[in-house]
Amino acid sequence: MLNELFDGERLEDLQCGGMMLIQAPRYFRFGIDAVLLANFCRVRAGETVIDLCTGTGVIPVLLCAKTRAKNIFGIEIQTACADMADRSVKLNGIADRVSIINGDVRCVCETFLAGAANVVTANPPYIKKGAGKINESNEIAIARHEISCDLSDIIKAAAWLLKPGGRFYAVHRPERLAEIMCAAREYRIEPKTLRYVHPYDRKPPILILMEFIKGGAAFLKTLAPLTVYEADGAYTNETQEIYSLKG
Amino acid sequence: MLNELFDGERLEDLQCGGMMLIQAPRYFRFGIDAVLLANFCRVRAGETVIDLCTGTGVIPVLLCAKTRAKNIFGIEIQTACADMADRSVKLNGIADRVSIINGDVRCVCETFLAGAANVVTANPPYIKKGAGKINESNEIAIARHEISCDLSDIIKAAAWLLKPGGRFYAVHRPERLAEIMCAAREYRIEPKTLRYVHPYDRKPPILILMEFIKGGAAFLKTLAPLTVYEADGAYTNETQEIYSLKG
Repeated sequence: MLNELFDGERLEDLQCGGMMLIQAPRYFRFGIDAVLLANFCRVRAGETVIDLCTGTGVIPVLLCAKTRAKNIFGIEIQTACADMADRSVKLNGIADRVSIINGDVRCVCETFLAGAANVVTANPPYIKKGAGKINESNEIAIARHEISCDLSDIIKAAAWLLKPGGRFYAVHRPERLAEIMCAAREYRIEPKTLRYVHPYDRKPPILILMEFIKGGAAFLKTLAPLTVYEADGAYTNETQEIYSLKG
Repeated sequence: MLNELFDGERLEDLQCGGMMLIQAPRYFRFGIDAVLLANFCRVRAGETVIDLCTGTGVIPVLLCAKTRAKNIFGIEIQTACADMADRSVKLNGIADRVSIINGDVRCVCETFLAGAANVVTANPPYIKKGAGKINESNEIAIARHEISCDLSDIIKAAAWLLKPGGRFYAVHRPERLAEIMCAAREYRIEPKTLRYVHPYDRKPPILILMEFIKGGAAFLKTLAPLTVYEADGAYTNETQEIYSLKG
């Protein structure tokens, strides 16, 4: 299997159902946010999931191991990333359930029927175009900054793809929450559940996990926060469980 | 001073600058939310503050003690509550800075000039009309349920009253956050700071303290959470400090 790797690439053990992922330092590599998002999603047996901005495919691969989804699609605009994701899918032997599409989130309506998905997921670029320092590597910049798609493109794609009552799961930085909620409600995707991720108890949150329901009624549940580290720097029990979950 | 009290009323020591407040069991009495909101507001010397849905006037009285605001107005629709608030103002000898108006938040544009306030505050009814059990006492129901005014009325009033760059502070239940944010942004009042209040560490939040800025740019800061109790049930140091702050 290792001869599938190109120069500079390495295999990451996802610690989940034996799944491996091809990554390369010159591209954006998945972080705790993708792992937490995959753990936060509720996916039922037989459902179809579409992951937007899939990168090297970490969310489709994790969801394949953790859930009984029938079909999982990952959409990625960068050809080299989509190719790595596709090779990871083959390497894990899950091509019967997971498909990687090298495409643009802004053009999903040209590929997918409206209402094709029960669940849409996204770990999108966090930083607004024009804000923050742009990474010198264009490949990493596209994954971090809203260059190829912005919040509104992602919400619009989710609104198109979801069936009525379908769920949209996203992870983002707390600073963008107001924009995300308002964009989602414009497309009748109602914010239903929030979970903040804090590095330590009583410290500001670094991430928000969000669940939206297409056509849902207004009522937002905020769950107990997820604390990553104990005061002594060790992982909390919950973080340990998330990282060691077998699919 | 006690002969100012009517039957069934009692005086509450606000533990803040010697301020007292007249309250009556048949009306809604202030809770931790009002105290936390008064503590959360930033008010500069010489500023004008307008408190919407002021009830028995706890926020104007606390802000008078804690800040150097020049003028503080409290607007309350229930005549009996407004009367108690007015008597508390006189009893505390702060009528030169605090005025209670028995009026309707929906009609502020008939009383106040646009841009009259630097700061608007609100501890509004939390529960949507039609949701939850209505309290048998109509006076308490008005304070708890959106009978006399709803979220959109409050935001609209704040938008009228605030100067450009003026601040709106509110406390609400986390379940209404999406509605509040979207209503505020419709009126160009940008959510800028959130602070969640948790009963205990790692438990779901019970309240949110919010700061909005009229005409502000999109960027939402989420502060470290405020935890009310330690695991053993004692107040945390921060809660103790808030309750014992002298104005």
